[in-house]
Amino acid sequence: MNQKIKAKVVGATGYGGLGIIDLLLRHPCAEISALVAREDAGKRISDVYPHLAGFCDMPIHAADDPAVQGKYDVVFFSTPDRVGMADAKAELAKGAKVIDYSGDFRFTTLAAYQDYATRLGKDPQHLSPELLGTNVYGMPELHRAEIARANLVGNPGCFATSCILGLAPALKAHLVNPHGLVCDCKSGVSGAGKKAKPQFHYPERCEQINAYRLSGHQHVCEVERLQAGQDVTVVFTAQVLPISRGILSTLYGDLTQDVTEADVLDIYRKFYAESGFVRVLPSTAAVGTMSVRGTNFCDIVVSVDARTRKLRIVSIIDNLMKGQAGQALQNMNVMFGLPENTGLNQPGMYP
Amino acid sequence: MNQKIKAKVVGATGYGGLGIIDLLLRHPCAEISALVAREDAGKRISDVYPHLAGFCDMPIHAADDPAVQGKYDVVFFSTPDRVGMADAKAELAKGAKVIDYSGDFRFTTLAAYQDYATRLGKDPQHLSPELLGTNVYGMPELHRAEIARANLVGNPGCFATSCILGLAPALKAHLVNPHGLVCDCKSGVSGAGKKAKPQFHYPERCEQINAYRLSGHQHVCEVERLQAGQDVTVVFTAQVLPISRGILSTLYGDLTQDVTEADVLDIYRKFYAESGFVRVLPSTAAVGTMSVRGTNFCDIVVSVDARTRKLRIVSIIDNLMKGQAGQALQNMNVMFGLPENTGLNQPGMYP
Amino acid sequence: MNQKIKAKVVGATGYGGLGIIDLLLRHPCAEISALVAREDAGKRISDVYPHLAGFCDMPIHAADDPAVQGKYDVVFFSTPDRVGMADAKAELAKGAKVIDYSGDFRFTTLAAYQDYATRLGKDPQHLSPELLGTNVYGMPELHRAEIARANLVGNPGCFATSCILGLAPALKAHLVNPHGLVCDCKSGVSGAGKKAKPQFHYPERCEQINAYRLSGHQHVCEVERLQAGQDVTVVFTAQVLPISRGILSTLYGDLTQDVTEADVLDIYRKFYAESGFVRVLPSTAAVGTMSVRGTNFCDIVVSVDARTRKLRIVSIIDNLMKGQAGQALQNMNVMFGLPENTGLNQPGMYP
Amino acid sequence: MNQKIKAKVVGATGYGGLGIIDLLLRHPCAEISALVAREDAGKRISDVYPHLAGFCDMPIHAADDPAVQGKYDVVFFSTPDRVGMADAKAELAKGAKVIDYSGDFRFTTLAAYQDYATRLGKDPQHLSPELLGTNVYGMPELHRAEIARANLVGNPGCFATSCILGLAPALKAHLVNPHGLVCDCKSGVSGAGKKAKPQFHYPERCEQINAYRLSGHQHVCEVERLQAGQDVTVVFTAQVLPISRGILSTLYGDLTQDVTEADVLDIYRKFYAESGFVRVLPSTAAVGTMSVRGTNFCDIVVSVDARTRKLRIVSIIDNLMKGQAGQALQNMNVMFGLPENTGLNQPGMYP
Repeated sequence: MNQKIKAKVVGATGYGGLGIIDLLLRHPCAEISALVAREDAGKRISDVYPHLAGFCDMPIHAADDPAVQGKYDVVFFSTPDRVGMADAKAELAKGAKVIDYSGDFRFTTLAAYQDYATRLGKDPQHLSPELLGTNVYGMPELHRAEIARANLVGNPGCFATSCILGLAPALKAHLVNPHGLVCDCKSGVSGAGKKAKPQFHYPERCEQINAYRLSGHQHVCEVERLQAGQDVTVVFTAQVLPISRGILSTLYGDLTQDVTEADVLDIYRKFYAESGFVRVLPSTAAVGTMSVRGTNFCDIVVSVDARTRKLRIVSIIDNLMKGQAGQALQNMNVMFGLPENTGLNQPGMYP
Repeated sequence: MNQKIKAKVVGATGYGGLGIIDLLLRHPCAEISALVAREDAGKRISDVYPHLAGFCDMPIHAADDPAVQGKYDVVFFSTPDRVGMADAKAELAKGAKVIDYSGDFRFTTLAAYQDYATRLGKDPQHLSPELLGTNVYGMPELHRAEIARANLVGNPGCFATSCILGLAPALKAHLVNPHGLVCDCKSGVSGAGKKAKPQFHYPERCEQINAYRLSGHQHVCEVERLQAGQDVTVVFTAQVLPISRGILSTLYGDLTQDVTEADVLDIYRKFYAESGFVRVLPSTAAVGTMSVRGTNFCDIVVSVDARTRKLRIVSIIDNLMKGQAGQALQNMNVMFGLPENTGLNQPGMYP
Repeated sequence: MNQKIKAKVVGATGYGGLGIIDLLLRHPCAEISALVAREDAGKRISDVYPHLAGFCDMPIHAADDPAVQGKYDVVFFSTPDRVGMADAKAELAKGAKVIDYSGDFRFTTLAAYQDYATRLGKDPQHLSPELLGTNVYGMPELHRAEIARANLVGNPGCFATSCILGLAPALKAHLVNPHGLVCDCKSGVSGAGKKAKPQFHYPERCEQINAYRLSGHQHVCEVERLQAGQDVTVVFTAQVLPISRGILSTLYGDLTQDVTEADVLDIYRKFYAESGFVRVLPSTAAVGTMSVRGTNFCDIVVSVDARTRKLRIVSIIDNLMKGQAGQALQNMNVMFGLPENTGLNQPGMYP
Repeated sequence: MNQKIKAKVVGATGYGGLGIIDLLLRHPCAEISALVAREDAGKRISDVYPHLAGFCDMPIHAADDPAVQGKYDVVFFSTPDRVGMADAKAELAKGAKVIDYSGDFRFTTLAAYQDYATRLGKDPQHLSPELLGTNVYGMPELHRAEIARANLVGNPGCFATSCILGLAPALKAHLVNPHGLVCDCKSGVSGAGKKAKPQFHYPERCEQINAYRLSGHQHVCEVERLQAGQDVTVVFTAQVLPISRGILSTLYGDLTQDVTEADVLDIYRKFYAESGFVRVLPSTAAVGTMSVRGTNFCDIVVSVDARTRKLRIVSIIDNLMKGQAGQALQNMNVMFGLPENTGLNQPGMYP
């Protein structure tokens, strides 16, 4: 490619924005052209994140700064719900491809969006309903071809990514009852973002594990909606742990067929044969969150509990990579016809 | 009580031995009379654990040292499987009450023990089969009266304690299908004991969450056997996290009745009405492992997922307290007719 | 003592207030009579700290609430600078003894206070200058007799406690040049208090060590002023580490005499012969912050570097205990004629 | 460069070996040709470090395996003392350049080596004395030209790197008295290597800070010997903290001149003008170990304490990068005439 892909990052100062900046800096075919954030406008990004000094010292602009109203090839909205739905349209009109991290474009019908927003107690009015249907759910392992043709991608949530990748092959093969699937999910603290909060203050967290919001999560909608055409219901438990990065989701379903672990391994490996970021492993594999830290991999460990006829899947990602910025970059690669792992083909830091 | 209870601690240098030493030092009616350990015999316990200097400087004896063959009121075997079954008999014969931490006396029939040992790939021969039947499973919340009459108690495992306390009221009330219960358990590293191992080396653990031994655990037997007379099956997942102390078990069962969270709260609170160490809490409770750290409490959070008809219980203990030494002391109190919380009635350290 | 000491805690919801509550709950001769805090008035303390549920469920009052204007035997001001200096007088007038955690009463002359306030860029006007001179610096190891006679005690800072206890014997014995002493101090995060801040957000802290405010600290004044009559100057470096509790201060001075480690051990042990909370140890001692966690001990390791003629002292405390609430309780014991370790005579939690 | 540099890594399974493997995998002009280790020979490196699966699956060979006796362009000895001194000669004879991580080639005269070995209680006999004098101390910031001409480089120790980089400009400019310099050094646990040890067992370390081996360290020799021709003495304190990666060394010297912080900044910046990996910062800089994690940078914060006439330098590195493998690769680049930051020019992972 002669000309580099010009990228604009909206929400540049959060962990999601930082993540895509870090990745774009290493990408051979893309470059950062504009940084936008509500806070810290006027500063340089390396003032906010000193480890970037010398690598990226670009200024941060307010969203309405004339300096950042040009045409970009790709715009990343690393922003909360309702920002992308307001601003994506203008970017698309100028010819940009848009990747949005929020719930705004994870659903492809207005009804589905409204169900999601209502369950969460949010305003159910979508600000760009005409875009719904043109957008694609940004999980290349399930929707590669559609993403390749799309201009607007809703980047999946981190918990949902781990659950959907862990469950999809079993559901497609009708291995498990699609109702009452158990998603027991554990996340590091960075999943809650950059903002300091009492429950994440170091002394309150360093020996603390807790479950939260047992009554319901946005992730439930996302997991239930986006399986391949089946009617799925899940019980979902979110838990926070004292690590910085990582999600480990343990998923349980009632087997509907007599299968062995070898059978399941085979089904999963075939399902992900074209998906280099998913590594399917047997129940004896010694993997954990450190196996994927800093990478875009999803490690999936399969096991069969014959006594209780349960399928049990352990699905492991880095919540800031495959769960956020890494997957966003993977989507960009697919949208621009690049090899999917461009700029992502590197082992993590260890230890 | 005019005369203090004289206690002998076998396995004094592990975390389980240390735990009971720490508790006995604060107990108003008991005193430590002998310390036994295979390693470090000849040293003082405060050489091994400097924080005990000035509080307990007693020598550590080898098991066969003549100095520790006297009569004690209570003997704690904080030892691996097959030590207590060999040595408890002699202590009982001298008139001691015995509390054993291992699997040796958690089962009250030879068949049950052999099933357990076989599943674990251990020698199924029990060295004191004549004691089986005289022993009691040491969970006062379920077996208080029997423990009060017993001379030999098998102290429960830490994972099993969290699961059984979380499931027992629901099973007794026939709220859930007893088959295919999901026990998703997360433990701090101290649950693996004091011995340094590669997977618990600080740099390998500080960002690591992993599931292990997916193929099966001793805990399954313990949980399945010891519910009130029902035929129960569970799928059990053990996971290790970078905290020092604490277990959080998330338990899922298929509801067999239409119940609300309020109904379940009521059932659980009645079940534990006499059990001061169990605190039953609604789904909105903001608790975690730090709520129970350093204490003998078990915090149980109940929730009902109406959409999937699942009962979900979050059960939280300190693995070294209610999961080990605390429960052992609670058993001692019950066996000696003391108030159950003697020497245990203290809030934990925070933060 | 027939009648328990009635205590009022002002600033009850911070870590310093929580610390003294936890200690008073276990104290055999004292009881909590009133809790005051600016935030959370109207709640119960166990709403703020759930681990206290069942142990202390008292309500939190605003400072001016008529319910807390009675006479108390002791009032703890666990408050920032300028609260105690405004409110202590009224409490003293009602006959209470007062222990203040802030800088307000750590200096016994107006000039010294003003020097401190000026160096820190604070308002140099003291609101109760007439009390200066009646107050005592609350370090029993150095000022036991004065504290026993005092009604008003300024509780030392945590960093200063570790430095002063580490340096006092050497200065008194003229072992070191009193000028240019190096105090290299490392603290856990709880030393910064309960309030969540960006630099203590778990993901920003878990792998972070940093030095801060190199240009100067309040602690310098406190260390320099309060040595036994000598003119002392120190260079002081504060560093924060990812632990919850603990301070380890490494102190360096230029030896003025030819001494061996044995000589220094002897001098230090004699100096602290009556001070049970100070444990003097040789350079080979294997101690660290976990040796004192949850206790009021100060572990002091002495070493002599003959090649460079340096005395090096490692001084270790729990910043929330000997560095704050523990020392406050120790002061209370001394002020009320109780054995100094009443309610403090317990080993820490391990591990 | 048409032909890639062929590298052999001896000691491939330790953290130092892993570090250079990770770096070589990303290096545009080098490739890994052989992996050697005493343990795990026969396995693949990705069996030992699963995060390398798909990136490096090469087999591990025993040192004497015929398969690894060929000619390599560069050999890294990531091995303990006395391995490199035995085996480097043969590699040099075959035409390889050698970079050794141990103390074997950090001294350029036999007398200096023997002094070092004797102080440490090691065998003072060097196995390749004829090589001493041909070797260079591998700190490019001080010895760039010699390294460019050398075939044998002794890679500096991690503690020494942080101290020497922090002190060298001040010593060269005669800003400080070269005697009695204080090096107060704090390291993460990975500095102790990969082997699990009781003091690094997660529960024993997560709240533990401690100083160790107060009586003396190999690092003292290294720091004292290798300053630019001056007679230097230091008192050195090594402390271990619960982080995985990072060293923060706080260095103190007695000023011999009246200088301001601005003067010192100027002197340091000039000294390191050609050294892109050293970032010199004022006393107000908000940096810590996370600023350099995963990178080859050394952040140096300068401050002047005018009252005590002390120069205070805070020197921060990643002990596994600039303190070990990163510096080794930097040396390789210099030895092969490549730009010094080839393969190292990347910001660290954050958070």
